[in-house]
Amino acid sequence: MRTSKYLLSTLKETPNDAEIVSHQLMLRAGMIRRLASGLYTWLPTGLRVLRKVENIIREEMNKAGAVETLMPVVQPSELWQETGRWDKFGPELLRIADRHDRPFVLGPTHEEVITDMIRNEVKSYKQLPLSLYQIQTKFRDEVRPRFGVMRSREFIMKDAYSFHIDRESLEATYQDMHTAYCHIFNRMGLDYRPVLADSGAIGGSGSQEFHVLAESGEDLIAFSTESDYAANLEKAEALAPATTRAEPTQTMTLVDTPNAKTIAQLVEQFNLPIEKTIKTLYVKASNPVEAPIIALLIRGDHELNEVKAENLPEVAAPLTFATEEEIRALIGAGPGSLGPVGLKLPMVVDRSVAVMSDFAAGANIDDKHYFGINWGRDVELGQVADLRNVVEGDPSPCGQGTLLLKRGIEVGHIFQLGTNYSESMKANVLGPDGKSVTMEMGCYGIGCTRVVAASIEQNHDQNGIIWPNAIAPFEVVIVPMNMHKSERVQEAAEKLYADLQAQGIDVLFDDRKERPGVMFSDMELIGIPHMIIIGDRSMDEGNFEYKNRRSGEKTSVSMSDVVAHLQAQLTR
Amino acid sequence: MRTSKYLLSTLKETPNDAEIVSHQLMLRAGMIRRLASGLYTWLPTGLRVLRKVENIIREEMNKAGAVETLMPVVQPSELWQETGRWDKFGPELLRIADRHDRPFVLGPTHEEVITDMIRNEVKSYKQLPLSLYQIQTKFRDEVRPRFGVMRSREFIMKDAYSFHIDRESLEATYQDMHTAYCHIFNRMGLDYRPVLADSGAIGGSGSQEFHVLAESGEDLIAFSTESDYAANLEKAEALAPATTRAEPTQTMTLVDTPNAKTIAQLVEQFNLPIEKTIKTLYVKASNPVEAPIIALLIRGDHELNEVKAENLPEVAAPLTFATEEEIRALIGAGPGSLGPVGLKLPMVVDRSVAVMSDFAAGANIDDKHYFGINWGRDVELGQVADLRNVVEGDPSPCGQGTLLLKRGIEVGHIFQLGTNYSESMKANVLGPDGKSVTMEMGCYGIGCTRVVAASIEQNHDQNGIIWPNAIAPFEVVIVPMNMHKSERVQEAAEKLYADLQAQGIDVLFDDRKERPGVMFSDMELIGIPHMIIIGDRSMDEGNFEYKNRRSGEKTSVSMSDVVAHLQAQLTR
Repeated sequence: MRTSKYLLSTLKETPNDAEIVSHQLMLRAGMIRRLASGLYTWLPTGLRVLRKVENIIREEMNKAGAVETLMPVVQPSELWQETGRWDKFGPELLRIADRHDRPFVLGPTHEEVITDMIRNEVKSYKQLPLSLYQIQTKFRDEVRPRFGVMRSREFIMKDAYSFHIDRESLEATYQDMHTAYCHIFNRMGLDYRPVLADSGAIGGSGSQEFHVLAESGEDLIAFSTESDYAANLEKAEALAPATTRAEPTQTMTLVDTPNAKTIAQLVEQFNLPIEKTIKTLYVKASNPVEAPIIALLIRGDHELNEVKAENLPEVAAPLTFATEEEIRALIGAGPGSLGPVGLKLPMVVDRSVAVMSDFAAGANIDDKHYFGINWGRDVELGQVADLRNVVEGDPSPCGQGTLLLKRGIEVGHIFQLGTNYSESMKANVLGPDGKSVTMEMGCYGIGCTRVVAASIEQNHDQNGIIWPNAIAPFEVVIVPMNMHKSERVQEAAEKLYADLQAQGIDVLFDDRKERPGVMFSDMELIGIPHMIIIGDRSMDEGNFEYKNRRSGEKTSVSMSDVVAHLQAQLTR
Repeated sequence: MRTSKYLLSTLKETPNDAEIVSHQLMLRAGMIRRLASGLYTWLPTGLRVLRKVENIIREEMNKAGAVETLMPVVQPSELWQETGRWDKFGPELLRIADRHDRPFVLGPTHEEVITDMIRNEVKSYKQLPLSLYQIQTKFRDEVRPRFGVMRSREFIMKDAYSFHIDRESLEATYQDMHTAYCHIFNRMGLDYRPVLADSGAIGGSGSQEFHVLAESGEDLIAFSTESDYAANLEKAEALAPATTRAEPTQTMTLVDTPNAKTIAQLVEQFNLPIEKTIKTLYVKASNPVEAPIIALLIRGDHELNEVKAENLPEVAAPLTFATEEEIRALIGAGPGSLGPVGLKLPMVVDRSVAVMSDFAAGANIDDKHYFGINWGRDVELGQVADLRNVVEGDPSPCGQGTLLLKRGIEVGHIFQLGTNYSESMKANVLGPDGKSVTMEMGCYGIGCTRVVAASIEQNHDQNGIIWPNAIAPFEVVIVPMNMHKSERVQEAAEKLYADLQAQGIDVLFDDRKERPGVMFSDMELIGIPHMIIIGDRSMDEGNFEYKNRRSGEKTSVSMSDVVAHLQAQLTR
């Protein structure tokens, strides 16, 4: 490709509306442009990267035995009604009507469509296992699209679905997909981790996410210092403390706390250790006839894990906090003064709270707290569960080492769905004994467009992007110095361009009439990994200059060796 | 690919709802499945063909110097308002609202989006000419989707757009695209014709369609018997007859025609030559203040060409026929008795009508016609224009030969848009003299999904599809006979499968435990061009059997020569 016939569209200034570095660099390097909120056009440079990402995914999915298919973007509402997701899915599911006013959706995912297809096409266990995938445009009407293509509304996803006669076959394909995902992200040169993920809401059992580690990640990942245990914070188990509960040493006293509306104020005003305080949160119950609201108790310095709370059978999904009015109507006190003592509601107590003694909590009377509370003596200990987010230093649930927290960007997710969709959609086959069996299903996603952004979060410096060879928009760029003045430089550049193309190397030839400084900074911004600089001075000595984008090192390479030199760089 | 890991999904029966052969065969060969009206899933076999079609298009567009980009499916309404198409486009443009109730469309085409992008990115004539294309999902909410993917609502299109400093540059790129399109359709092995097309509605000047010739085509194409002139019927000019008007021989008489409501009835009841009758049609005028309605006069045996009529400046676009009530209110007679004599409305007369003498037409009195009408003597000849469809035998407008009519399927369209979009969207660049210039634009489309169906219309027999090598889902299929009983057959089949893959040949290995007859008929239905049959009997003589799908010929090929034999077949 010649820059003179190309649309480079690099920008000198960092656009104001781009918060994270990948978004800034994708705009500056001319990879994407915003069309409307959460809608992006992929300019040529961006699309070249995206296509390489897609092709790596395609190759590895094919190797893993999955077969490519392509389903429509627009899906009829009937299928979503069949699985109940027409009602359950929030406004991220964009519902539309056609010219005849029939209801459709813009597909955010394709479980319904593929299950419908497979129940029609597959009749016998002999056709199983079967894995199908597509690389296709999806739409999720995010309430607040942000970070460019990291969280856009229209995006490209690889979604795969597998169908099985039994659990064992599902688990085998799940492992194959895990392996394929590792190959995919390894080939892309990403620093990633497979992490345990929650699978509560969709049902199903096993679920792992693949996270690219980056400061800008929206997820927190808990890692063991000693093993390869890794889990999304929402999933990472907080073990019960090894210590047992200490005997009471204080008597329970009612204290006036008119200015302590929060744990922070209480701790400061009364010089209490925060680990001796309790937060009480009220959420809607799943069975409002038994009790409309349930109390969740967390240590003052801990955070509620909303996914764990939502997964409790007695808690309504989606997790909904009680309003101040609802709380006042039931308790007679406001949110600043809630606690377990004298409470007439069901209570779930975090494991860390269950081992506390001599602790402080709201008295369920406005502007009053109890100090020196002890379980059993002052109030019965309710049901105990894991309710909190882990914190750094917690023991790892794997039994080895303690936990560290890092930020991650979710780029993939593999999921054992079980019969969650096949049951409601009656996707059955005849088994070996001639009886009808509900198929087991798995699903496996990769956010293709997000991978591009995530890769930039890990591969950049102050001058721009630094692409790994495998997903670079171009592998090599030829930068001739003052080509329009030197016939010798022009001839050498044209010859090298032809030679590299003949070798199948993906090369950009910067044939613009620009100053060398402009060309260098554009090419560093775009992040092409290997640069050959052609100038009269080095040619006097029979050399070109080679510059490596990642190391920044410049070396002289003999003109006759330059193709071999580049081939060696590219096969490393 | 092994059929055991694949989703063949062939059907024995022809589905009831499929009218044309490509739709029937795409369903039967397991290429597509209907999800909802006008929405199709591409099963693996169909997608393999579609991807090969896309890749041929991609390669030739790249060779022609176009650069690939990717724009969103969902487009903001503002851009469509800017060009006026928000109002002008009919209900085929699906208008939707997002969660914040902001208006968007599902893009049926991308002139607005690309022009918006280019006006932001391109500032100088030095960046021109520039051609960009995408291969992308489109949506048109057809009122009556039909013929499978031939006229579906969601479809995949290659749409390219070029930008120029002047007309000359546009015309040069238009020619390059014409050449690229010929390469594309030649490589796909299609029998196609570039034909002149109307460009009235979009504005712009030059426009050609590429049609695949097939009986099921929705368009009629007029060809010269002597030259390479070809035009869409809507565009093909009907020349003025070479004959001059004969002198009157009859006097005009008013005749009672109570049972002649149509030309056919009039001709039959009064034994008139149909070439001596006239049809009068009333359409809405573009300037209703001057006249609300205009009369169009066509010879009784001719058909009105609605595109030609709509392109008349005095006729309102879109072409709208007057209702019976409107006609009665103005004329005092109904549609069965209309004619030019005594008419107080503007009149446009077809060229063939202008040379008629002694003709019959309605008297503008119910149940009465005039016979023996003559121009000048009985009624003034109005404006003369080309208003009718050509018929076979008409002289060709190119001056050589006469016209033949054939049916075609439009698979491509190239178009000189001129400044139609760039002017309304203010897409300007600085010219060489520093002054602002409105860019000239071209656009160039190919219906990728439709090409697949059109190709089947041309390539099939009673057993199924016959793919050209270049777009076959697989180039070769290996059919082993009773492989599960003969170890020797299985080993030979596995070895050949590995050898062909090693040579980069796209091969399907039918490793199902099926009877040979089932395998043969499935593979003929799917249309794989080259089949290797492996059986004990031929192996006794050191041979495999080769069968050519198109010719049906079977030949014995030595086992050691089979790879070379297939390579020779594939490079033909």
